[in-house]
Amino acid sequence: MQTTGRAVLKGKGAARARAGHPWIYRSDVAEAEGETGDVVRVTDRAGRSLGRAFYNPHSEISLRIATREDEETDEAWFRGRIERALAYRESLGIDADAYRLVHSEADGLPGLVVDRYGDYLVLQIGSAAVERRLAWILPALGDLTAPAGVLLRGDAASRKKEGLPVGVRALSGEVPDLVVAREGPIRYEARLATGQKTGSFLDQRENHMAAARYVEGAARVLDVFTYAGGFALHAARTAERVEAVDSSGGALDAARRNAELNGLENLTCTRASAFDLLRERSDAGEVYDAVILDPPAFAKTRREVPRATRAYKEINLRAMKMLAPGGVLVTCSCSYHFSRETMEETLRSAAADAGRTMRIREWRGQSSDHPEVLTIPETRYLKCAILERS
Amino acid sequence: MQTTGRAVLKGKGAARARAGHPWIYRSDVAEAEGETGDVVRVTDRAGRSLGRAFYNPHSEISLRIATREDEETDEAWFRGRIERALAYRESLGIDADAYRLVHSEADGLPGLVVDRYGDYLVLQIGSAAVERRLAWILPALGDLTAPAGVLLRGDAASRKKEGLPVGVRALSGEVPDLVVAREGPIRYEARLATGQKTGSFLDQRENHMAAARYVEGAARVLDVFTYAGGFALHAARTAERVEAVDSSGGALDAARRNAELNGLENLTCTRASAFDLLRERSDAGEVYDAVILDPPAFAKTRREVPRATRAYKEINLRAMKMLAPGGVLVTCSCSYHFSRETMEETLRSAAADAGRTMRIREWRGQSSDHPEVLTIPETRYLKCAILERS
Repeated sequence: MQTTGRAVLKGKGAARARAGHPWIYRSDVAEAEGETGDVVRVTDRAGRSLGRAFYNPHSEISLRIATREDEETDEAWFRGRIERALAYRESLGIDADAYRLVHSEADGLPGLVVDRYGDYLVLQIGSAAVERRLAWILPALGDLTAPAGVLLRGDAASRKKEGLPVGVRALSGEVPDLVVAREGPIRYEARLATGQKTGSFLDQRENHMAAARYVEGAARVLDVFTYAGGFALHAARTAERVEAVDSSGGALDAARRNAELNGLENLTCTRASAFDLLRERSDAGEVYDAVILDPPAFAKTRREVPRATRAYKEINLRAMKMLAPGGVLVTCSCSYHFSRETMEETLRSAAADAGRTMRIREWRGQSSDHPEVLTIPETRYLKCAILERS
Repeated sequence: MQTTGRAVLKGKGAARARAGHPWIYRSDVAEAEGETGDVVRVTDRAGRSLGRAFYNPHSEISLRIATREDEETDEAWFRGRIERALAYRESLGIDADAYRLVHSEADGLPGLVVDRYGDYLVLQIGSAAVERRLAWILPALGDLTAPAGVLLRGDAASRKKEGLPVGVRALSGEVPDLVVAREGPIRYEARLATGQKTGSFLDQRENHMAAARYVEGAARVLDVFTYAGGFALHAARTAERVEAVDSSGGALDAARRNAELNGLENLTCTRASAFDLLRERSDAGEVYDAVILDPPAFAKTRREVPRATRAYKEINLRAMKMLAPGGVLVTCSCSYHFSRETMEETLRSAAADAGRTMRIREWRGQSSDHPEVLTIPETRYLKCAILERS
């Protein structure tokens, strides 16, 4: 488990590494020796150290730089990185018992995601180098968080490329599929083994709570793409009436159970296609004091951006049209490829076509336990704009 | 004072007006009849209404659309706009007695800025059409805010183009130059007749308070370009020691008096060029738990952006180098032409060169009483990034 191989970067790769980006593409590697899952020494062509990296010759990103120092990534190193990640979360004063403890590259641990749900930890591992070092990582997490059980959500198809088995399994203790987690004043069901991501959209936690402040007292709130009620539950605590919309009956069943769990009787659920419902309601002249749009990623690749842009514009245009004066639009995109600038341009175009003057109240990102690193633009993917009709 | 003239827009100007932008450039006007200070009917070439606009044939922006409706901008109209602007501020729950009541285009009142400092109002007027209607505006402001005095800060040279006299004068009551205003827990001196803008940088109020949360407990804070202590005073309430830097002795005298006013003995002032001090301190290996950079606009025109970019990079690079692990950088730019995207790219480049991994904690804008309108990009000028060394 010592550093065994080595890699030499071409000029472009070396420049990228020096600029603080941990991803080195195969085409930027001049030569490399090692096996999938090795930690390798990285240098430029002149032999100058660029640190050490997790290696996978089968991946397009064949090196993920773990440290910019020429240091051994041994057990103490992994424990140190995990300690730092946990100390950062401690500093945030998070008002929830479910949140992200380790956020991959953004915590200097490429390929490792650790989410906490109360007494349980759920791991996502996308790097053979990390999985081979679980015998170091698990004791560190155990000592630092004393979990009742640890689950590996190894069901991402991308694990195949790392030569890792695809499946979900407990790494320690017993982990129930269903847990009840808390997010500020709201309790909700999370399905650790079978739900989206590791059971919930933890990256929206702070936006859920921010939205609740903006919709306080609103008579009519429409939450579209509600999934299990993420925004709707928080909104229902502060607004008069909330209608939560999703195309999935299973998601709405969860939303209903969550509403009951929190004693929220002012939340109703509607099963419908978001696009159809927004069109019908806006054509019918319906008016809302707040609309929340939290769609799935419309652009999963760069190529999909033009089509996604039309879809984002359509839903935002419809929502803006339905806003009462002073009404609030909370609008999100979790597509990395749909940039903040493109999103702003799209919202501007929607406002122009809707004939609406919209104040920008806030531009938000993902929750702070999913840190964004300045020199790694890919760590910023979630955008949440809070707009207000003036 | 009725709408007297008319203006016909070329295609480009009409498209711009339809997209919700109130500024129509002279080159986009096909024909116009009227005098400086008139309100004119605006149409496209087919005679379709685009609303009514404040007219000034001598300005490059010769029309400022006041309403997209074909409606008379009479006394009731002005009062209605002012009422709406005030209602919006009421909704914000502002924890201060000095803030902006009317923010020009962003409140649908092009050319009119109204700031409140306790019992006094300070106006900035950049439009002859507005100034000619003061007999409507002053009674509305009087009824709605009952000020002890109203001052016109008419000292902007740009007033000449509107045919307006340049100077400062009381419009009603008696207005002292020096008042003590409150911004959250901090009291500070504002010089209404002679200070920057209308006496203070009200647009930074919320950023001042946000920064204070991030520097809580910090042992050493450096506030560069402090002016009268804007950020430093708030930081001194939560941090252990704050050093405030400015090149102006007069500004530092004000900062010292403000520190005394708040009983803050942990704030020291240093008179120095920001660039020299940052270079000397970083070369000397000084370390800070937080650095705050709130420079004046380095880019006042588009042409100045490349030079400004170098200057922003220089100060941010120096600041990042001096940050202790976990240290916070609060960095601002009030240059509209230095866009958020360019600022982010510049900060990224500074972090790369400084060899620092920086978490993005927040991207903030100006205070919410200085609203940003989605369809008027120029209403967004102030950027404030809060970064943290990881």
